[in-house]
Amino acid sequence: MSSGPGIVFYDIPSQHARVTWSPNPAKTRYALDFKGLAYTTEWVEYPDIEGVVKALGGAPTGKKADGRPHYTLPMIRDLGTGQVVTDSLNIAIYLDKTYPDKPLMPGGDWALIPAFESAIQPLLSNQLPFGIPASQALLNPPSATYFRATREVMFAQTMEDMLPAPGSERETTQWAKVQAAWNTIDGWLTTAGTKYFGGAERNYADLYVAAYVFWIRTVFTEDKWRDFATWHGGRWALLLDTVEKD
Amino acid sequence: MSSGPGIVFYDIPSQHARVTWSPNPAKTRYALDFKGLAYTTEWVEYPDIEGVVKALGGAPTGKKADGRPHYTLPMIRDLGTGQVVTDSLNIAIYLDKTYPDKPLMPGGDWALIPAFESAIQPLLSNQLPFGIPASQALLNPPSATYFRATREVMFAQTMEDMLPAPGSERETTQWAKVQAAWNTIDGWLTTAGTKYFGGAERNYADLYVAAYVFWIRTVFTEDKWRDFATWHGGRWALLLDTVEKD
Repeated sequence: MSSGPGIVFYDIPSQHARVTWSPNPAKTRYALDFKGLAYTTEWVEYPDIEGVVKALGGAPTGKKADGRPHYTLPMIRDLGTGQVVTDSLNIAIYLDKTYPDKPLMPGGDWALIPAFESAIQPLLSNQLPFGIPASQALLNPPSATYFRATREVMFAQTMEDMLPAPGSERETTQWAKVQAAWNTIDGWLTTAGTKYFGGAERNYADLYVAAYVFWIRTVFTEDKWRDFATWHGGRWALLLDTVEKD
Repeated sequence: MSSGPGIVFYDIPSQHARVTWSPNPAKTRYALDFKGLAYTTEWVEYPDIEGVVKALGGAPTGKKADGRPHYTLPMIRDLGTGQVVTDSLNIAIYLDKTYPDKPLMPGGDWALIPAFESAIQPLLSNQLPFGIPASQALLNPPSATYFRATREVMFAQTMEDMLPAPGSERETTQWAKVQAAWNTIDGWLTTAGTKYFGGAERNYADLYVAAYVFWIRTVFTEDKWRDFATWHGGRWALLLDTVEKD
């Protein structure tokens, strides 16, 4: 545990007080836990994110459809260095550079992570029809309204149309696509013959994957999670358990 | 340099004696050079690959369109251990496991490499219209005939139709796609803020990239190579120079 003044970590709340749900902040939370750094969590509702990030001088992480800067969480404010960092990958790189103990990427091969993201995001996109409406449903009213409005434009679909109806053929087909995607991810590990993306030990790519396993466990229906947790010998559920003990 | 009995490395010849050209065997050659392992090269023409690999008990690396096993180079035969290994990634993993000195992936994070391949291969596919016909043109007669026949089926195009005509609008458009692809690859390094995919030092991903830079230098027209070599501050030409000094 760091003995410094610590880090403030900005996350998005759900209706359940202090219960996190979003996969992107989870990447940062797992990175902080992995490195054993002391932090406190500040909860920011969606409509307040832009204002909070701008007030602290945090950088935008992309552009909106209309070209204006887009502000997102996670963000950290390092009380020891005064630095404010946005974007989960930037934050992870910053943490390893500033706190070299317990490195997230022991080889320093960080450039493999954006390539990993390019490969894994099209696969993970198969679970959005389940995950996006389910995430919206558990947000507090101001975030729920904001999330619905922005995501319905982004996906050109209402939350209700996006979610495959339970028991429908579309649900079966879409869930099979989710399984095929995780088959591919499992295949990367099988090809390499390693337990983790980091090899014998976890690295940042494993925490990245765990963040999406966490999302499935937290927002998907109980029967979907139970099914998912059996895939590949229970590898993903075990990964999440292990990461959450870090 | 290893003092063992050494390794036999199987590569595909061009019309120029002992001049290699193919990017997949280049990944293995650079891996052997990087690790300082002693090896001799055996040259196998395309129509002979299946017979040579099968005779040594090498595993197929995929399936043909008709479902029969597909045999490819590179292959290595390790005279020290008696092992025969096919597939460039399998070979690289084998080399690190068998000869742990000078690791190709110091963190052991080999599972990031198939993900890296998934991300980079769609980008590199933009250079196939230039590279495939140019490769065919420099093969010896038996390989040239075999390569033409198999690739014309694979790409559903003759070599002559595949190659963008010099000075044509299609050439300009296709070359711009090649540049956009390398912009993305460069962006991964820029995001990470590292010199190499391996961080401060090269790892297997850098040798993998260098194998395609080598292909561009060896088979593309001189003016294409000269243009490519200026991209991103000359980063790729410099990488190839560095790797070839390993």
